[in-house]
Amino acid sequence: MRQKQAGGMADKFISIRNVKFLLFEVFDLLSLSKYPYFSQHNQKMYNLVLDAAMKMSTRLLHPIFEEMDRNPPELVAGQVKVHPAVAGIMKEFGQGGWISATFPAESGGEQLPSMIANACFAMFFAANYSAGVYPGLTAGAARLIDSFGNETLRKIFLGKMFSGQWQGTMALTEPQAGSSLTDIATTAFPTDDGFYKIRGRKTFISAGDHDGAENIVHLMLARIDGAPAGAKGISLFAVPKMRLNADGILAFNDITVSQIFHKMGYRGAPIAELSIGDKDDCRGYLLGEPHRGLACMFQMMNEERIGVGLGAASIASAAYYAALNYCRQRPQGRKLTEKDPSSPQVPIIEHPDVKRMLLFQRAVVEGSLSLLMQCSQYEDMTRVVLPPEKNRYRLLLELLTPVAKTYASEMGIQSTSQSIQCFGGYGYCQDFPVEQHFRDMRIHPIHEGTTGIQGMDLLGRKVVMENGKAFVLFMEEIQSAMNTARKFPGLLSLADQLDKAVKQLQDVTFQLAAVAQEKGLEIFLADATLYLEFFGIVTVAWQWLLQSISLQKAQAEELSASEADFYQGKLFTARYFFAYELPRINGLAQRLTDGNPLTVEMKSCYFSD
Amino acid sequence: MRQKQAGGMADKFISIRNVKFLLFEVFDLLSLSKYPYFSQHNQKMYNLVLDAAMKMSTRLLHPIFEEMDRNPPELVAGQVKVHPAVAGIMKEFGQGGWISATFPAESGGEQLPSMIANACFAMFFAANYSAGVYPGLTAGAARLIDSFGNETLRKIFLGKMFSGQWQGTMALTEPQAGSSLTDIATTAFPTDDGFYKIRGRKTFISAGDHDGAENIVHLMLARIDGAPAGAKGISLFAVPKMRLNADGILAFNDITVSQIFHKMGYRGAPIAELSIGDKDDCRGYLLGEPHRGLACMFQMMNEERIGVGLGAASIASAAYYAALNYCRQRPQGRKLTEKDPSSPQVPIIEHPDVKRMLLFQRAVVEGSLSLLMQCSQYEDMTRVVLPPEKNRYRLLLELLTPVAKTYASEMGIQSTSQSIQCFGGYGYCQDFPVEQHFRDMRIHPIHEGTTGIQGMDLLGRKVVMENGKAFVLFMEEIQSAMNTARKFPGLLSLADQLDKAVKQLQDVTFQLAAVAQEKGLEIFLADATLYLEFFGIVTVAWQWLLQSISLQKAQAEELSASEADFYQGKLFTARYFFAYELPRINGLAQRLTDGNPLTVEMKSCYFSD
Repeated sequence: MRQKQAGGMADKFISIRNVKFLLFEVFDLLSLSKYPYFSQHNQKMYNLVLDAAMKMSTRLLHPIFEEMDRNPPELVAGQVKVHPAVAGIMKEFGQGGWISATFPAESGGEQLPSMIANACFAMFFAANYSAGVYPGLTAGAARLIDSFGNETLRKIFLGKMFSGQWQGTMALTEPQAGSSLTDIATTAFPTDDGFYKIRGRKTFISAGDHDGAENIVHLMLARIDGAPAGAKGISLFAVPKMRLNADGILAFNDITVSQIFHKMGYRGAPIAELSIGDKDDCRGYLLGEPHRGLACMFQMMNEERIGVGLGAASIASAAYYAALNYCRQRPQGRKLTEKDPSSPQVPIIEHPDVKRMLLFQRAVVEGSLSLLMQCSQYEDMTRVVLPPEKNRYRLLLELLTPVAKTYASEMGIQSTSQSIQCFGGYGYCQDFPVEQHFRDMRIHPIHEGTTGIQGMDLLGRKVVMENGKAFVLFMEEIQSAMNTARKFPGLLSLADQLDKAVKQLQDVTFQLAAVAQEKGLEIFLADATLYLEFFGIVTVAWQWLLQSISLQKAQAEELSASEADFYQGKLFTARYFFAYELPRINGLAQRLTDGNPLTVEMKSCYFSD
Repeated sequence: MRQKQAGGMADKFISIRNVKFLLFEVFDLLSLSKYPYFSQHNQKMYNLVLDAAMKMSTRLLHPIFEEMDRNPPELVAGQVKVHPAVAGIMKEFGQGGWISATFPAESGGEQLPSMIANACFAMFFAANYSAGVYPGLTAGAARLIDSFGNETLRKIFLGKMFSGQWQGTMALTEPQAGSSLTDIATTAFPTDDGFYKIRGRKTFISAGDHDGAENIVHLMLARIDGAPAGAKGISLFAVPKMRLNADGILAFNDITVSQIFHKMGYRGAPIAELSIGDKDDCRGYLLGEPHRGLACMFQMMNEERIGVGLGAASIASAAYYAALNYCRQRPQGRKLTEKDPSSPQVPIIEHPDVKRMLLFQRAVVEGSLSLLMQCSQYEDMTRVVLPPEKNRYRLLLELLTPVAKTYASEMGIQSTSQSIQCFGGYGYCQDFPVEQHFRDMRIHPIHEGTTGIQGMDLLGRKVVMENGKAFVLFMEEIQSAMNTARKFPGLLSLADQLDKAVKQLQDVTFQLAAVAQEKGLEIFLADATLYLEFFGIVTVAWQWLLQSISLQKAQAEELSASEADFYQGKLFTARYFFAYELPRINGLAQRLTDGNPLTVEMKSCYFSD
């Protein structure tokens, strides 16, 4: 059992069956085709898209999953060198239309729903997270240019980015301003020539430089010289590493890499620190209006937050299937009822505690993926319906973005940790992939906004915005799911449990709102991270109820043995979630309502020893 | 802030103040001196011992903490090469009397209490976990020889092991028998010459071979040829890599290293797979009686389980102090009540969510260390009191060993993960030590018995042994702490909360006992891991109550400002534990009593996709 896994089942990193279950059975992807914007797509085409994504994941990305980890990027003479396969990967992504997948046809895109695009990216990320980040970031950066750039900028950048020749990045963070974007100090000096001169430093820039692309296009936040302090003085720029001169030749744009970071995981992609405009020759191109850059950037930020959640769920998926395969093959111990020590050992998957660990992983993986598909569906709906309905989906998406990002990321750590545990000592060794999944996972509660930031975003902004409208809409969504579930006798108990949980969530939310009124913002938000955890568990319970409705429908039909097993497994996983995970909200509710502002009253000097 | 931390506070890895608080205020180490066995020790001597341990940790172990990780062991021509400092470390440990610290003087030891020895090992482990494992294992192995070896064996081995010249190991695991010790297949063939010939394979042997010692002494489980199958046919042997020939010359004993493992963390110590007796020339020396080896080995196993818990708590300690230091120095963001964006940023330790993360780490670190000191105290008491009192301490120690091992290990993962989170992106990079602590930590829920094994040990063996006597004694211990606590008005609420929690623990335990009667062993033990988690939280709450009693006593006196801060911090951390951690038992209790044998009914075929 110590040998490296190879071939067949052993290399499974995601369940296509589950992806199709979510797309076609739970979220009814095909129903989008009734809207003109998505009317050119049908089941056959979606199947081809999924097949193509799976083929690319299996043949191109997964074989170098370990290699990219073992040979991380290096900074050589000012140039970041990455795994030689990256250039080819970017081109394949470009040629396959994956970078432009969800862009409108008029911008040169494939006009695919986010649901199907994100399902494909789940495959890419599960196969090789680092490799999937290069095209993923490029797509997000391109969308900002498509949304906020003028015709000239769109013409210069979009084609090259869609084709994978140019890399896109998100350049927000600065050494002195990590989570605190209002403190950004990079400065843009206006010129009379239609561009700005940029000077400053950016750090932790994913794919911030590499030799797998001909150019790097930074979507960068900076302050126009003289702009007001704080969030209202920040503007958005496209700042390429190489600029296109009038003669069409690429010329160096005065952005240098001052260092790259040596990371615990996620080592296939470089994270760079950039020095911008040291020779006062870096040109940036304004996107959108001056001083409105933060709002623009949040379009990409929100998309990337869903991407982070998707990456986390996908890494957890890969680790889960590696563990599942091992547990099926590894003989160890006997049933507790077997007293004969000379009887053969059983595969460890026969032990209840191992099944519990596997159910946990499956509950996290499939629950997270379901929630991410839900968010993708909301996004798709905002593209096809008109106000005020459009506003409904926008609000739901905004509310659930921090939840989807964080649940998948935080629970992903625990899920990959349990994958290691299934392997025992072997899981701690590099012969198996799970230790890398565990390392790759740990970045997710940090990048694109830490869990603490997501908690404040949820409780301090999303729950209260528009007088709590998003929260009310969310309650309606859950109520509707419970109403449907109650038509199935097998789901009555789950619906009742969710009902109770939702009432707890409402109670806690109202009590916290009262705290905000009476005791002010600091105490109100002190435990926002715990509120987010609470919210995430209830939200994923709702997703498991939605999946349970779909599987009840399917189980009403005649099924093959393997299909019957699939649905039974789904049902057990749903039950697992309600029996083991949902009760965790009780402890959180108790803490969130006990009214003890402990962390506010704690003084830093009390940490004296 | 990106620069490597160096010097002074930045390198703090453990709080001496807290160690002394536990030793002298909570567990009253000096009271042991009234027993003849420990009567030669006094406060002054203990202080010298602690100073010496701290000096060794700071000067010898901590400076190569990262180096040993970056340059892991290599297998070169059949010999495992470790960091060149290991040989010197072993000698220093030997010369300092650390390996023989808790051995009786008549065996050549220092006759120190386990409490002080484990406090010192907490320093070593916090400074450099891998480095502390070499002497730690040697001490455990030597104890088996001291306990079960005849005069000749004790003469050959003990001196060399105490001096750090010879390394000791625990050689249980085999490739086909990981957690299932009954399936051990290594065979011992009797000879007429007072030794056995050993043949077999052992794997995952910590410090199983290295060039920092002149010899490796494996404490090995094997089956005497023809022995009955199962646990009752296993014997214990001392099997050195080099045997002492009649002429006093060391000669190769036919043990070869077939591979070493490349691990995610804990990389300063080699983990080896051994091939034993390939040339039929490996001699092993029986310890204790034939077929009684498992019981003998469990003496070392239990000691090492406490050692694993201690290692985990100590790694978490080092990560916590690194995070604390960073949070004090890193400016980022402002108070929520500060509306002026041009006001200076505050150190992140001022943010309630950051204080919450720090309190969590401190609660885990100091709660775990307290529980480990408690276990050490029980161990010390078994050495000085007579039956039946001796039995009381033995039972308590046996009951709490799986709890102390697992709480520190499992919560240690979460604690080091929060240490990373405090650093944000920097925590994920190798410039700071926390990513290594996170990697080093992950082995602890695996080695010396996985968490699943510990759960079965607690619920299936320890809670029910001698008709539940250990559990009853444990309840008495907690009751006694609550009685004392209720004398302090400031602790009434904590005592009441613990009272409620203990009643829940009793309820759950009795309900599970009924399940065992009615539904059999498999369903009874299916959620033993969750029961262990539940038990651990209540146990550590009790430890926080004990600490709170001591700090209330101290706060009654006049205190310097820094001492006052220390005790205030303790009090806040105790309150944190009761407000944030203890409520987690509610969800666990709900699950443990809901009577749904989900993981038993789940079939492996339902994991079909």
